[in-house]
Amino acid sequence: MFVLGIDPGLSRCGYGAVRRSGAELRAVACGVITTPPEQPLPERLAALAGELRALLAELRPDVVAVERVFFQTNVRTAMSVGQASGLALVAAVEAEAGVAQYTSNEVKQAVVGYGAATKEQVQRMVQSLLGLAERPQPADAADALALALCHHAQAPVQARIEAARVAAARR
Amino acid sequence: MFVLGIDPGLSRCGYGAVRRSGAELRAVACGVITTPPEQPLPERLAALAGELRALLAELRPDVVAVERVFFQTNVRTAMSVGQASGLALVAAVEAEAGVAQYTSNEVKQAVVGYGAATKEQVQRMVQSLLGLAERPQPADAADALALALCHHAQAPVQARIEAARVAAARR
Repeated sequence: MFVLGIDPGLSRCGYGAVRRSGAELRAVACGVITTPPEQPLPERLAALAGELRALLAELRPDVVAVERVFFQTNVRTAMSVGQASGLALVAAVEAEAGVAQYTSNEVKQAVVGYGAATKEQVQRMVQSLLGLAERPQPADAADALALALCHHAQAPVQARIEAARVAAARR
Repeated sequence: MFVLGIDPGLSRCGYGAVRRSGAELRAVACGVITTPPEQPLPERLAALAGELRALLAELRPDVVAVERVFFQTNVRTAMSVGQASGLALVAAVEAEAGVAQYTSNEVKQAVVGYGAATKEQVQRMVQSLLGLAERPQPADAADALALALCHHAQAPVQARIEAARVAAARR
């Protein structure tokens, strides 16, 4: 299974792709999409949407794991993070990939085993799990790789929960 | 000038198109895009994005006026409204329309002359300004028509402010 993690953001949108073959987990790509802060919001969102589409067309992941965002103290940032997450979810559906969403705490719990782990702890575990020579940089890219790793860990559980949900909804 | 107002929302996304010819303001289209609540969020967002693109391709407005959304008490709704607004802004840019954003209070101020106007007052004024036989229904469609009317009223002022901003940024 090939999973692309996306840590949505307008100024910095992290992505990280992890392929699993048997027991082996391998980082295929990671990086950050940025949009210029001096541009108007609609143009920045459109640029991000275009970059996300291009990334999905290039990588063709089976599943896209997007961080589930909540409201922060900074209302302005939270709104643009919400808008960016919407674009990521739509890009995933339109690329015919499966879509999963995890909160930051769920990712930390799955990857570090501790929901309140620090960014540095996440980076170390991502490095270790993927056998990388160096700690993945920047933090947004590491978070995106962690999202992909979280989905690799959670997918079997999620599949069972989803099947039960669908069955319950049809009753 | 032909303006499409969009009142973003995931369950109900209002739209209303108003054309101005000389002093005459005419409603060309209005309605509501809905997505089924029983579907998963990513599919609903993708369906909304598709509908918005189709609407823009059909109407080809010069400008799209999108309600600027803020956080409400209902955090779940606010996030999906934010996501929907992001999709509307991107659809507008990709359709090569101009984009404007107004808060609900700015719209009420421009259309009713009173920032705390009720939904009913907005509907009455929209009916009156557009010479409609009946009050526009539902409220989301009336709000979208009001957004379009707000832009028709504000565009000359906005153009001057924007020109001044661009000039200031280049200094």
